[in-house]
Amino acid sequence: MPVNLAAPDPASLHAVPGVEIGIAMAGVRKAMRRDLTVLTLAEGSAVAGVFTKNRFCAAPVQLCRKHLAADHGIRAIVVNTGNANAGTGEDGLVRARSTCIALARHMNLAPEQVLPFSTGVIMETLPNDRIEAALPAALADRGAERWADAATAIMTTDTVPKGASKQVLIEGEVVTVTGIAKGAGMIRPNMATMLGFVATDAHIAPSLLQALVSEAADASFNRITVDGDTSTNDSFVLVATRQAAHTEITDAGSPEAATLREAIVAVSQQLAQAIVRDGEGATKFITVQVDGGANEAECRQVAYAIAHSPLVKTAFFASDPNLGRILAAVGYAGIDDLDQGLIDLWLDDVHVATKGGRHPDYQEADGARVMKRAEITVRVDLHRGPSDRKPCAVVWTCDFSYDYVKINADYRS
Amino acid sequence: MPVNLAAPDPASLHAVPGVEIGIAMAGVRKAMRRDLTVLTLAEGSAVAGVFTKNRFCAAPVQLCRKHLAADHGIRAIVVNTGNANAGTGEDGLVRARSTCIALARHMNLAPEQVLPFSTGVIMETLPNDRIEAALPAALADRGAERWADAATAIMTTDTVPKGASKQVLIEGEVVTVTGIAKGAGMIRPNMATMLGFVATDAHIAPSLLQALVSEAADASFNRITVDGDTSTNDSFVLVATRQAAHTEITDAGSPEAATLREAIVAVSQQLAQAIVRDGEGATKFITVQVDGGANEAECRQVAYAIAHSPLVKTAFFASDPNLGRILAAVGYAGIDDLDQGLIDLWLDDVHVATKGGRHPDYQEADGARVMKRAEITVRVDLHRGPSDRKPCAVVWTCDFSYDYVKINADYRS
Repeated sequence: MPVNLAAPDPASLHAVPGVEIGIAMAGVRKAMRRDLTVLTLAEGSAVAGVFTKNRFCAAPVQLCRKHLAADHGIRAIVVNTGNANAGTGEDGLVRARSTCIALARHMNLAPEQVLPFSTGVIMETLPNDRIEAALPAALADRGAERWADAATAIMTTDTVPKGASKQVLIEGEVVTVTGIAKGAGMIRPNMATMLGFVATDAHIAPSLLQALVSEAADASFNRITVDGDTSTNDSFVLVATRQAAHTEITDAGSPEAATLREAIVAVSQQLAQAIVRDGEGATKFITVQVDGGANEAECRQVAYAIAHSPLVKTAFFASDPNLGRILAAVGYAGIDDLDQGLIDLWLDDVHVATKGGRHPDYQEADGARVMKRAEITVRVDLHRGPSDRKPCAVVWTCDFSYDYVKINADYRS
Repeated sequence: MPVNLAAPDPASLHAVPGVEIGIAMAGVRKAMRRDLTVLTLAEGSAVAGVFTKNRFCAAPVQLCRKHLAADHGIRAIVVNTGNANAGTGEDGLVRARSTCIALARHMNLAPEQVLPFSTGVIMETLPNDRIEAALPAALADRGAERWADAATAIMTTDTVPKGASKQVLIEGEVVTVTGIAKGAGMIRPNMATMLGFVATDAHIAPSLLQALVSEAADASFNRITVDGDTSTNDSFVLVATRQAAHTEITDAGSPEAATLREAIVAVSQQLAQAIVRDGEGATKFITVQVDGGANEAECRQVAYAIAHSPLVKTAFFASDPNLGRILAAVGYAGIDDLDQGLIDLWLDDVHVATKGGRHPDYQEADGARVMKRAEITVRVDLHRGPSDRKPCAVVWTCDFSYDYVKINADYRS
C-alpha cells in the first residue's frame, strides 16, 4: 500500500508544447501490456541527463551517454519496460542501438538523436525485434496530453503511476514543467530514479541545462532510498523544448532562471518522494534530517546510515519505538571522531535522547504515539558543526515490511 | 530455521583448565531466565579483545577497553542478556562500573580486573541492582564443564546455542581451545560477533595475545554479515589461562604459535559461521568469494556489496536465479574504474556470466538447480588483479526472508 500517494489526475499533468507521447504494446515480457513509450521532441529542443553511477550500467545508459555527448540534438526518447537490457554485454549494446536506428529511420533522424531507456529484469536478452515492430504503432498513437498514460506505461513493480506538473510565469508567459517517474525498489542515491523524465517548454539556453538537471537530481532523486541497491539503469532526463515566448534565459543567476529551477526542483522532489511513498512494501514515509555535522556531506552520511538500516526500518514497520537502533546507526555511519555524548534525537516533536542517552522526560508512550503515524520525521543533531552556520541534510525513505521480501522474492514469477 | 546448525554436544565443548563458569537468573528483562553468566579466570591468565567500531559503543565496551588498558590482570568476565546498556550515556557507565565493583568485591579483586558485557535491547536503563543481587548465585554455581550452558545463557534472538572446541598437541601436551558466541542480527564486519569468548589453556606470552585475537577476528567474525547493521556491543575476547605444561610460546613465528593460531582461527570461524547459519530468518548459507581484484581490500568490498544487497538476498530466499542482481551489486560496490566487460560469475559449478554478460552455455534451469541448495557459493572474478598472484576475499552471509522482518519487527514485544 503506497503511503499517501494517489495516481495523478490526468488533467493535472499539463501538456508541454513541443513534446508528444505515444504508447504501444510490444510484448517485451508479457503480451497485452502497454510496455513501449515514445516521446518525440520538437526541433530545437535541448536535453540533458544524469545517470546511474553503477559501473555495471545497462546498455541503454551507455548509449544515452554517447548520444548526448554526440550533441546532434535529441529528438526522441524510447522507453521499454519488462527488460532492463543490463548485464547483457556487447550483444545488449547492439540491440539497444538497433532500436535507436529503427526509430531514427521512421523519423528521418540520425540514430544519435534517439535516447533509449529500458527497465525490468536484468541479464535477459532484449527482444528488440518486438520493440522495433511496435514503433510505428507508438508513433501513430502520439498526442500531447498523454503524460498520465506514459506514467502508467513505464511502471514495473510500481503500484501507482507517478507524475507531477507545475506552471510558472516568466515574463508574463505561462511556462510548464511536467514530469513522470518510475521506481519502487533498487532505489539508492546516485541515481535513485530508476527512470525520470521532466520536460519544460521554457526557453532556456542549452548550455544551462546540464547544471540544472544535476541540481534537480541532487535535491530530489539523490535524496531517497528504499533498499540501498543502486540500479544499473537509473536515468533522469530533463528536456527543454524552448518553445515558450519569453526571452531566452542565458544567465543561471537571473530571477527567471531561479523561477524555472524552483519549478523543476519541485516537480522532481514530488516524483522522488512518490517513489519512496510507493517503495516496495512501504507502509510509512520517513523523513530523516541530520543537523549539526561538520559539513553537509557528513550529515548526509549519517542520514543514509539511518535510512538504510534494516533494523531501523523494521522497527518503523512494527511501530515499535526501539529507538536505540537509530543511535546505533548514527554510531556506525563512519564518523571516526564522533562524540556520542553530544547527540540529540527527536521523533517528530518528541525529544527521545539527549547527550547520547535517553532524555529524562522521554516516555515510551510518546515514542509509541509518533511511531503509529504514516509520516514521521527523525531528527538527529550531532552538535559538531561550525557555530556560524548549521550544516544539514534531509533524506526520504520508507519502512521495511514483509511485503518488501514478498515483492522481491516473487518479482519474476 | 538455522541452516545445517545444531546445538553443540555439551561433551564436545572441552573444559579449559583455569576457567570456571557459573550461571544465574537475574531477571534483567524477564523473570526465570538464565540471563547472567560469570567466567572466572585463574591468576596469571592473559586476556585480549577486539570491540565494535561503532562510535555509539555501549557502556560495557567502553569499560572493557579501559580495564584491559589498565593491565591489572583480568580475572572475571560478567555477561548479561536482556539489556545492552547502550545509548545510556553517563548513567550507563556508572551502572556497568557498579557491577564490576560488586563482582570484584566478592572475589577480592580490583574492579579493573573485571570485564563486563551486555547484550539485548538498546537505550534501556540497566537494572544493575538485580544483576548484582544475582552475582553470589552465579559464583556459587561455577564449574569447569559449563560451556554449553553458557552458550545458551548468552543467547538473545539466537535459536541455537553456539559453541566450538578443538584440542591440539603442543610439545606433546594437550592444549584446549573452547569458545562460545551469540548473535543472529545486527551482524556486520568490525565486529560482527555480537559477543564471542574463546579460551585456551595454552602457555602463551601475554604480549602475543592482542595480535592473535585480531588475526582470529579478521579471519572469522569480520567476514560475516547478516543485515549490515554494526552493533554497539560487539566484542570478541580471547583468554589464555597459560596453565598447559608446554614451554611458554614467545615467538609469534614459531611452529607452536602456528598450531595454536590455527586452532583458535578454526574455533572462531566455526562460531562466526554458526552466527550466519542462525542469522535472523536465514534459510540458506551463502559463501561469497571474489577473486581477481586489484588487491584484497577491493575483493572484500565487492564481496560485501553482494552479501549486503537486499535484492540478492531475497532472490536467494526465493531460490530465484535472478542473477543480474549480483552483477548490479558488483557494479555499485564502489570500484570507480571497474570494467564490466571482464567479469565472470559462477554459482557453485555453474558458469552464469562471462565478459559481463550471460554465459552462452548458461541455462536458467542450471541456475535454478543451484539456487535450491541450502549452501551456495557465489564466485566472482573481476580479472583486474596482478598476474603474479590472485587477491581473493571470502565473506559468509545468509538469505533474507519474511522471518527477518518478523523477528525484527517483533523483537521487543
